[in-house]
Amino acid sequence: MNYVLACLTQINNGTNSVTVKARGRAISRAVDVAQVLTKRFATDITVKSISINTEQVKSTVSGGMNNVSSIEIKLQK
Amino acid sequence: MNYVLACLTQINNGTNSVTVKARGRAISRAVDVAQVLTKRFATDITVKSISINTEQVKSTVSGGMNNVSSIEIKLQK
Repeated sequence: MNYVLACLTQINNGTNSVTVKARGRAISRAVDVAQVLTKRFATDITVKSISINTEQVKSTVSGGMNNVSSIEIKLQK
Repeated sequence: MNYVLACLTQINNGTNSVTVKARGRAISRAVDVAQVLTKRFATDITVKSISINTEQVKSTVSGGMNNVSSIEIKLQK
């Protein structure tokens, strides 16, 4: 809900597009944020594009590199 | 990894497109599957389209309806 509020604040300040990014297990939350925004709070906003990718993140345990999926959801007024 | 194998089996059987769907917290796993497939196992496959939506699911606890985010990733040869 904090992320929804952050997006709404940006939009109400006059921005026309907001990008929601997440990686790993937070990806589902990014989708939640986009859905709550477009379906409930700002129905004039639509999903412009969604892209998925892989990022390399350094493991805090082994020190090696791990592949982590990421998502980028572009919302537009 | 089971889902990656399932997709690969379909593709090797001659299918040209595979759709990976998930909802709720499994969304990040669907993205993982798509990324592992396109980046490692079947580099001739590309992400054709991604769509997100909201589904109504009956709660097993309260019996009421809950909104759950869902994702649909279309992969194409």
